[in-house]
Amino acid sequence: MDRDAELRARAARVIPGGMYGHQSVRTLPANYPQFWQRAEGAHLYDHAGKRHIDFLCAYGPNLLGYGHPAVEAAAAKQRALGDCMTGPSAVMVELAERLVDTVAHADFALFAKNGTDATTLCMTLARAHTGRRKVLRASGAYHGAAPWCTPVKAGVLPEDRAHLVRYEYNDVASLEAAFEEAQGDVAAVLVSPFRHDAFRDQELATPEFARRMRALCDSHGAALILDDVRAGFRLHEAGSWEPLGVRPDLTAFSKALANGRALAAVTGSAALRDAAQRIYTTGSFWFAAVPMAAAVATLELVRSERVIERIERLGRRLRDGLAAQAAAHALGLRQTGPVQMPILLFDDDAKLVRGNAFVEACVERGVLLHPWHNLFLCAAHTDADIDETLQATGEAFAELRRRGL
Amino acid sequence: MDRDAELRARAARVIPGGMYGHQSVRTLPANYPQFWQRAEGAHLYDHAGKRHIDFLCAYGPNLLGYGHPAVEAAAAKQRALGDCMTGPSAVMVELAERLVDTVAHADFALFAKNGTDATTLCMTLARAHTGRRKVLRASGAYHGAAPWCTPVKAGVLPEDRAHLVRYEYNDVASLEAAFEEAQGDVAAVLVSPFRHDAFRDQELATPEFARRMRALCDSHGAALILDDVRAGFRLHEAGSWEPLGVRPDLTAFSKALANGRALAAVTGSAALRDAAQRIYTTGSFWFAAVPMAAAVATLELVRSERVIERIERLGRRLRDGLAAQAAAHALGLRQTGPVQMPILLFDDDAKLVRGNAFVEACVERGVLLHPWHNLFLCAAHTDADIDETLQATGEAFAELRRRGL
Repeated sequence: MDRDAELRARAARVIPGGMYGHQSVRTLPANYPQFWQRAEGAHLYDHAGKRHIDFLCAYGPNLLGYGHPAVEAAAAKQRALGDCMTGPSAVMVELAERLVDTVAHADFALFAKNGTDATTLCMTLARAHTGRRKVLRASGAYHGAAPWCTPVKAGVLPEDRAHLVRYEYNDVASLEAAFEEAQGDVAAVLVSPFRHDAFRDQELATPEFARRMRALCDSHGAALILDDVRAGFRLHEAGSWEPLGVRPDLTAFSKALANGRALAAVTGSAALRDAAQRIYTTGSFWFAAVPMAAAVATLELVRSERVIERIERLGRRLRDGLAAQAAAHALGLRQTGPVQMPILLFDDDAKLVRGNAFVEACVERGVLLHPWHNLFLCAAHTDADIDETLQATGEAFAELRRRGL
Repeated sequence: MDRDAELRARAARVIPGGMYGHQSVRTLPANYPQFWQRAEGAHLYDHAGKRHIDFLCAYGPNLLGYGHPAVEAAAAKQRALGDCMTGPSAVMVELAERLVDTVAHADFALFAKNGTDATTLCMTLARAHTGRRKVLRASGAYHGAAPWCTPVKAGVLPEDRAHLVRYEYNDVASLEAAFEEAQGDVAAVLVSPFRHDAFRDQELATPEFARRMRALCDSHGAALILDDVRAGFRLHEAGSWEPLGVRPDLTAFSKALANGRALAAVTGSAALRDAAQRIYTTGSFWFAAVPMAAAVATLELVRSERVIERIERLGRRLRDGLAAQAAAHALGLRQTGPVQMPILLFDDDAKLVRGNAFVEACVERGVLLHPWHNLFLCAAHTDADIDETLQATGEAFAELRRRGL
């Protein structure tokens, strides 16, 4: 039995289902490693010692590269002073100042540990601010895994979701209808910067949709909450809707913020500051200094190294290369969403037969993709990585054709 | 303006209220530092360079000492391999195995980041397991800061707490009445191992109360959830109710588990395993390896270094010393709860005038206490620390008498 199989067998005894949550490989091809031995830059090494070019990037947190030297140096310097202490460190102020400087709408910042902490906190803040109950959210959108938002209902009560009202992403009429339905009681609209639901094509927000949402929030006195947990700092450092010219009242950040260390942040506009002073929220590790030092270094590098331009250029190369290969093999491949965070889905593949076979063939060749979740590029990916990836995907497409898939 | 004051002024501009949550010093004496410069062992250094003997221990996480060499070595070794990656590391299995071996009732373990994640997860698991809704919890108990449990209601809806039923800690009749009230719909009883509410005397659980709770849970088919977030690994490594001979079905751990790194765990009995496989819970950093490596090292040291015995002995010395001093000054000082986690409250001091003055005088002398929250001892405290502390507290008591308090 190889090491990954041995670990899976041991895990099955002490971890429910052998693994849980988004990092369980239960639904993925059989050759997808469950456990990783080590990570460096954009590469992961499995327990057989094989190198994989990683296009999941820890499902988002890896923005600059695993073990990025400047981030690690900043973290180590802070660790030598202190991390989780009886009170916060100076770096918490520095990070809050940097977020207020960087994120266009931000007047203040709060910190937590999970993306779910941040989205929940935004909702609580909006309710405290408005004195209202309803939160409008898009059908199918993922905003975390607390009872109010987890995609699986086991253990969840109807009351946990009593005041959520659905609209359809990019559908202005459905948004208007949701405001109508919740008339006078809308605390907030919660929205992802683009539609990045699993299992389906991603959709960029249309300018009309984003602007109408802003206008409806303004006219109803509701807060616009941007859930930038997944996309934050990969699309625009000032906030992912900045290119649309639409500013939220609250933003939830996490994942890439500290390049892999556990940190989440909420930024708020000035109008929400009073509510932010009235709510009570905290956590044992929320004031820990090391992840904050890593975040300061990460945000500095995002700007100084023009990280977003870099991953956009690499993502464009990957998308163009894959498109040409799929066309050459007459395979209908849909690549949607920003090139920094693409999802790859095959036409006429509702059961993901092609998608799984393609991912399996790529894993075999040391390229880690995903059949139904969006991918992430990072600044540690190189042109050589893209070349090597396209070599592998070219072979994988050919294998699909050979197998008649 | 000194550095702490300068940081407070800057924080006031970018952080709501200047600071939020349990680490805000807003209600504490004016000389209580808000920001810490560095930490080592059981000592904190403020921004004036002054050393404080820290009896808050980061409000629990610091169990072995800040920057404990063996924990830091284990963490550094894992960090050189990888931390937050696209999948978990072998150390996750090792830690789950260790918890199952160590915690008496544990058949499986799940990991998260916050104590609140763990208590929420326990509640969700119990509801999924029983198909019922009601959770019985003690009046005034702190179980986290999500909408269902935060002690401040701003932004919270009645629905968030729709199925919580109160009982009084150590009051068997009130527990029976709560079961009666929720007849047939009790998913779980949530309980802290001892009553450690802020602002009041702590109470150890009586054996009658704990046993009756277990019996009621058994006869009603409800899950007994032990919230060991605050006390875990300071009272008994197998679980804080092990000395009472009462085993829970689910336990929430966090704080001390990884000696200050962000980690939470839920341990569950075999009967809950199926429910644990049916719920969906996850977080971006929940599978990160470094905190888990720190936890493995921490649990190893708790056992090999007899940490609990050590902090119990030091806590006993502190308690006896303070009691003698208070008596000598004819001051009514109540020290309640386990000696490892005492709370200090003065008689006839509802407004905490004495308590605040005492803490202020101690901070002045480099001893960090708290006027209304329980304290924590750690294994890095030494007999010299206790001697120095008692020197400071003796002077502080004398100052109280001089001031006629």
